[in-house]
Amino acid sequence: MSDKVTIATIARLAGVSVPTVSRVVNGRSDVSPQTRERIEQLLARHGYRRRPPSMRASSGLIDLVFNDLDSPWAVEIIRGVEDVAHAAGIGTVVSAIHRRTSSARQWLHNLRVRSTEGVIFVTSTLEAPLQAELSRLNLPVVIVDPAGVPPQEAPAIGATNWVGSLRATEYLLGLGHRRIGFIGGPAHLMCSRARLDGYRAALEAAGLGVDDELIRPGNFYHEAGFTGGERLLALPDPPTAIFAASDQMALGAYEAVRRRGLRVPDDVSVVGFDDLPEARWCSPPLTTVRQPLAEMGMLAARTVLRLARGERTESRRVELTTELVVRDSAARPPE
Amino acid sequence: MSDKVTIATIARLAGVSVPTVSRVVNGRSDVSPQTRERIEQLLARHGYRRRPPSMRASSGLIDLVFNDLDSPWAVEIIRGVEDVAHAAGIGTVVSAIHRRTSSARQWLHNLRVRSTEGVIFVTSTLEAPLQAELSRLNLPVVIVDPAGVPPQEAPAIGATNWVGSLRATEYLLGLGHRRIGFIGGPAHLMCSRARLDGYRAALEAAGLGVDDELIRPGNFYHEAGFTGGERLLALPDPPTAIFAASDQMALGAYEAVRRRGLRVPDDVSVVGFDDLPEARWCSPPLTTVRQPLAEMGMLAARTVLRLARGERTESRRVELTTELVVRDSAARPPE
Repeated sequence: MSDKVTIATIARLAGVSVPTVSRVVNGRSDVSPQTRERIEQLLARHGYRRRPPSMRASSGLIDLVFNDLDSPWAVEIIRGVEDVAHAAGIGTVVSAIHRRTSSARQWLHNLRVRSTEGVIFVTSTLEAPLQAELSRLNLPVVIVDPAGVPPQEAPAIGATNWVGSLRATEYLLGLGHRRIGFIGGPAHLMCSRARLDGYRAALEAAGLGVDDELIRPGNFYHEAGFTGGERLLALPDPPTAIFAASDQMALGAYEAVRRRGLRVPDDVSVVGFDDLPEARWCSPPLTTVRQPLAEMGMLAARTVLRLARGERTESRRVELTTELVVRDSAARPPE
Repeated sequence: MSDKVTIATIARLAGVSVPTVSRVVNGRSDVSPQTRERIEQLLARHGYRRRPPSMRASSGLIDLVFNDLDSPWAVEIIRGVEDVAHAAGIGTVVSAIHRRTSSARQWLHNLRVRSTEGVIFVTSTLEAPLQAELSRLNLPVVIVDPAGVPPQEAPAIGATNWVGSLRATEYLLGLGHRRIGFIGGPAHLMCSRARLDGYRAALEAAGLGVDDELIRPGNFYHEAGFTGGERLLALPDPPTAIFAASDQMALGAYEAVRRRGLRVPDDVSVVGFDDLPEARWCSPPLTTVRQPLAEMGMLAARTVLRLARGERTESRRVELTTELVVRDSAARPPE
C-alpha cells in the first residue's frame, strides 16, 4: 500500500498543489519552511518513496563538510577526496558548518540548491536535526571519522586506534622504557578509549602494572599536551617517555620538556599519534602513529560516488590500518 | 561593426548549426574539441561579445584552485574563501590541478559543466594555455598570490613582503644582534626579492654592511632551512640570529641548531615568515612575520563575487599588511 502513495495524494492531504509537493520532493528551495515541514511529515508518515539517487540528474558535485576548517586534519582529507573526485570529473564543494545551527541551516539550503550527489562529513558527531534533514533529501552520506564514534546510520571510515597505540607503546618498551606517561584524548570519544586501552594492553603484555599516576587527561590540543607534560615531569618519579594520543599534544609535551631545561629525546622520549605534516617539521622530527587521512578521504569519495550510482557498500564501518613512523623523538632512557 | 556579429554569422562561417555555436558560447561540453577550437577562433576574430557574467544563470558556486593541496597555506586560504562564500549562499569547489596538463584539461572540462561563477587561483604562475581558455569562458578570475609574481591580467591579492622583512630584521637588531643570517626564497619569485631587500634595508638603515656570506639561497621548504642553517652555523664567525623567509625554513633552521647541540633562542635566535599554525606549536614557539592568509582568501572571495555581479574592482593588485608576531624564538645574543 505504501508504494502506491502518490504526489497527488500528498498534495490533497496537505491542501497544496501537486507542483508544490513535487518541489519539496525534488529538494527545491522555493517553498516556505512551514509548508515544506508539513509536506515532509506527510511524505514520511505515508512512506512516500523518492526516486533512488541513481535516477537523479548528475550535478557533478559532492560536498565535503567539516565542523571547522581549522582542524590540522582538514587539508589531508581534502587532498584525498579531491584526488578521487577530480579523476571522476566531479567537483568537491568544501564547507564548514561551524557547529552553529544557523550556519547548518544555510548550508542545507545551499545543498538543496546545487543538488549535490552526496555528502562526506568529517566529524565525530552528526547532530540529530541535520541527520534527519539529510535523510529527507535522500542523499548518500559517508562519515570520515578519525575519532571513532559509536556506529551511526551512515557508513563510516576510521582507523585502527587500538593497534596503533599498542605498537607505539611496545616500541617504547623495546627501547628500554619502564615508566611511560600517557596523555589521552577527550573521554567521550571512542578513539580516546581505544588508544588508552592499546597503551594498557602493551604494558600488561610486558608484565608491567599500569600506574594511574602516569595517565593524564587531554583533548588532542597543544595546550593539553603542554600541561599534561608539565604534570608528568613534575612527578617525584617522572616517566622517561611520554606517549601523547595526538601529534599536537606531543608537540605540547616537547614544549614542557624544553621549559624544564631538558631535551627530547636525550632526557625524555616523546611519541605522538596522527602523523600530521608538522610531525616531519618539528625538531626533533616526531616518532608517531600514522593515521592514513588522505587514504580515508579517498575511500570516502569512492564510497559516496558508489552510493550515488545506487550501488551498495559492503560494510557500515571500515577501519584503515595505522602504522608506527619512527623518526628522532624517542631513544633509550637515560642511564 | 563587431557588436553586430551574431551566432548565426559565426555558424555560417564555421559551417555548423546555430545550436552548436550556442553550445560553445555557453561553455557546454557536448561539442568536439576540434569544432570548439574552430568556433572559438571565429568568435575571437570577429569580436563576438558574450553576455556579461552578471547575466549568467547563477550556479551558486565558485572555484578555488591550487597547484597542489599539500601547501601549508592551503587550509588557511580555504577557510577565508569558504567563510565569505558560505555567508553569500555560495558553495566553494576546491580543486588541485597538480601542474599536469591533462589534469588542467579535465579541470577545465569540469568547470564548464558546472558553470561556476568565478575562479580563485592560489598560485604564483598561471600558465598561458590555461589563462587563454579561462578568458574564453569569460569567467571572473582572481589570483591569491602570497609569492608576489609580476602583474598579470587578473586582479591579484598579495601581502607586504618588503615591510614584513624589514620589521623582522629591525626586531633582531633591536635585541642586539649584529650578525644576522638570512635564508631566502626561490630567486625567480618577486616575494623572495622583496624579503631579501627588506632585510638589506634594515641592516643598512642601522649602519651595518651586508655580509654576503650570511645570505643563503633557499626555496621555502624545510630541507632548505636545515641546510642553510647548517652552513650558516658552520661559518668561522657564525651569525647569532637567523631570519628565514618562510616558517618551514625557520623550522629547518631549528633542526640545524639542535643537531649542533645548541638551543633556540639561548644560543641562536630564529625568526620566520608566514605564521602558519605550526609557528604556534613548535618548540620554542616561533617569532614570525604574519601573512594574513585567511584574510587574503576572504578578499579574493569578495572580489570574485563582485566581478560575477558585473561590478568592477578598484585596483589590479592589493597587498594586505604583514605584521611581526613575537613569540619565544628570539632573544638577546649570548654574551
